[in-house]
Amino acid sequence: MGKTAIIGASNTKFGNLVKKNKETGELTDLVSIYELINEAGKAALADAGVEGKDVDGVWVGSCAPGLFANQEHIAAMAAEIDPVGLRFKPFSRVEDACASGSVALYQAIYALESGRARVALVLGVEKMNLLDTKGVTHALATCSHWPTEGLAGMTFPALFAEYAKGYAKHYGISEDKLRRQLASVAALGYKNGLDNPLAHFGKGGPSDKLQLVTAEAILGLPDEKNPMIAEPLRLHDCSLISDGAAAVVLMRLDDAKASGKKYSEIAGFAQVGERMAITVRPNMYELTAGKLAVQKAFAEAKITTGDIDLAELHDCFTINQILSTEALGFSADGQAGDDYAKGRFGREDRPSVNLSGGLKAKGHPVGATGVSMHALIHKQLTGVPIGAAPAKAPSVGVVFNVGGSGVTNCVTVLKAGK
Amino acid sequence: MGKTAIIGASNTKFGNLVKKNKETGELTDLVSIYELINEAGKAALADAGVEGKDVDGVWVGSCAPGLFANQEHIAAMAAEIDPVGLRFKPFSRVEDACASGSVALYQAIYALESGRARVALVLGVEKMNLLDTKGVTHALATCSHWPTEGLAGMTFPALFAEYAKGYAKHYGISEDKLRRQLASVAALGYKNGLDNPLAHFGKGGPSDKLQLVTAEAILGLPDEKNPMIAEPLRLHDCSLISDGAAAVVLMRLDDAKASGKKYSEIAGFAQVGERMAITVRPNMYELTAGKLAVQKAFAEAKITTGDIDLAELHDCFTINQILSTEALGFSADGQAGDDYAKGRFGREDRPSVNLSGGLKAKGHPVGATGVSMHALIHKQLTGVPIGAAPAKAPSVGVVFNVGGSGVTNCVTVLKAGK
Repeated sequence: MGKTAIIGASNTKFGNLVKKNKETGELTDLVSIYELINEAGKAALADAGVEGKDVDGVWVGSCAPGLFANQEHIAAMAAEIDPVGLRFKPFSRVEDACASGSVALYQAIYALESGRARVALVLGVEKMNLLDTKGVTHALATCSHWPTEGLAGMTFPALFAEYAKGYAKHYGISEDKLRRQLASVAALGYKNGLDNPLAHFGKGGPSDKLQLVTAEAILGLPDEKNPMIAEPLRLHDCSLISDGAAAVVLMRLDDAKASGKKYSEIAGFAQVGERMAITVRPNMYELTAGKLAVQKAFAEAKITTGDIDLAELHDCFTINQILSTEALGFSADGQAGDDYAKGRFGREDRPSVNLSGGLKAKGHPVGATGVSMHALIHKQLTGVPIGAAPAKAPSVGVVFNVGGSGVTNCVTVLKAGK
Repeated sequence: MGKTAIIGASNTKFGNLVKKNKETGELTDLVSIYELINEAGKAALADAGVEGKDVDGVWVGSCAPGLFANQEHIAAMAAEIDPVGLRFKPFSRVEDACASGSVALYQAIYALESGRARVALVLGVEKMNLLDTKGVTHALATCSHWPTEGLAGMTFPALFAEYAKGYAKHYGISEDKLRRQLASVAALGYKNGLDNPLAHFGKGGPSDKLQLVTAEAILGLPDEKNPMIAEPLRLHDCSLISDGAAAVVLMRLDDAKASGKKYSEIAGFAQVGERMAITVRPNMYELTAGKLAVQKAFAEAKITTGDIDLAELHDCFTINQILSTEALGFSADGQAGDDYAKGRFGREDRPSVNLSGGLKAKGHPVGATGVSMHALIHKQLTGVPIGAAPAKAPSVGVVFNVGGSGVTNCVTVLKAGK
């Protein structure tokens, strides 16, 4: 079993890429799911310097394109990536809710490591904004345990609110303190997002105009600007509903080295599944399965927490960034919220977290997210920083991508190629 | 890259597993998607003699569980397989329309061949009958090229009608002759289904009561009993809308041999993707990409058509069984319809086709179909015949599973273990 490497990556602009007919209210595409796939795939292949004929398979992470955009069997659209060269390749869609992108990438790694593929294209895509908020909420709720959660009206903000309450209770954190911790996480995302031109909420966007780059600014918002969604989570604790795509090109590490191209090594990864219904899980104050994934991925990569320069964490809700930060060992259990409130994990810190802006500011086209995290860590490890170049080039980056309420936990360690 | 093997398999009863409230018309589960997953998974593990703790990963093929049953992220339900032993495993859902099951199985093979897994559980599941016919038609139509097909009202019967018309035109087959050819395919499926106790249309079922086991019987039906769906395809040319699940347990071939258990070897497989929109495909009289998949799978397995004892082909519509039969070389191009009309490919023939009854009689819970095909070929290769035991034990079986209108083409060659 040889290692693998990323040798090319791309990320489309994330955003609300629809237009609304003012008279009928009808939502139509500004950029369609088909165009997103084409744009991301074409750019990643170009970045890798790989032609379509050299691609042995395409894996597409997408969460619910049938519900969001009336298009299942979405992987087959890879045949249309311009210039058409992917006809007759195997196209496989992979879905594990908001971890679809990482799980797709892991299937490609298996294929490369098995020897059946030498070059793999991995795409993540989601087109969410053709539905109204009610439709989006329903589609996402199908990623919860429907009989006991979605059907019962318990949507994702409510599920992560259980984590927020569980975390505060377990560690004895007061309501005010928790509020500040969560706001600090959101502010860091918004601040970082200003440096990412691809971000849904970037420079000149809503978070910039409201200057929501400090916890104080968020805490100072009137209720109507930051309404309660699911106690204790408010609007600014929730990630964005975005359209977008990302892609990476993978090959075996020895091939990547031989190519002379810039690459980042997939040094270790792990996917660990948790039972889905939160009613059967006692530990609603930590990502139990996520911690296991960290152990496994770190062991394979032969790293410890202290080796990590940067990380992209799954802040679908601010509380989950806190839980992921602890799962990775960046903070002791129960301390991450406080660490964020103290201003840790910023651009100048090591590790820096979510320099992309995270799901909070970069946006969260759910099936694209895992691939986007890998794409942007790869970019930063190969000399393409987000915003100003860091004083010291990063050499180890980590992705922590979560599907469902801590259900599918994907951790990847990437190392800058030598 | 070592080979892999199937060492256990299961298949639930396929059927319309819902009940309808006579007053409200509401459809509710007789057997839920959760129960189907549990039943198939538990039985396959038991058949393999494998405990949950020994499973390294679960791959779930499912086409549109979000649309059909409000449950995306369905792979995570594998954690609930009784007795609970699969928590903390990686659960990955794979989707490629009606080829989801085979594509899921291929990902498991990659993981085994990569050395990252030693035992894999592959499940296929679909719960279709909670929706009415209109809902099912919509959900399936999202597996076509939505902008030019589904959205335009071109549902799957219409897409395969294009194949039927293209086939008749290309080979100069008269309307009457084509009608008889298609009816012969359906009759063979119905006849075989009578021997499969798991079939949706089996003994005592609608096709049995109407004695639809000959082309004459089907051709003799009055229009209202066999209405036109999409010229030239009639009701009895279409597969069934079924609920069901199937599962197989895979390990590496050397492990399977060492286990002393009965196994079938995955001797070769290939997945080849076609461009999705039929408007961009000139050859609507053959499965162009399917033929490529056959070549590749046969080359890997080192077999020719003449080596094959039995096959499960994807008769989503009768015309597709004809096209698959030709793609596999069982008939010369343009001859398969005639061969079926002459009564070839029956139980006593070599190869025999769709002894399970196929999608026409066994049923077609779309995400389960690919896994079911593998499960039933495996059973037959390991001494568990469908119906009466054949005079000579079969040693080579083939699966031909198709997603979309000839878009995702999966071919697997299985050999009886020695």
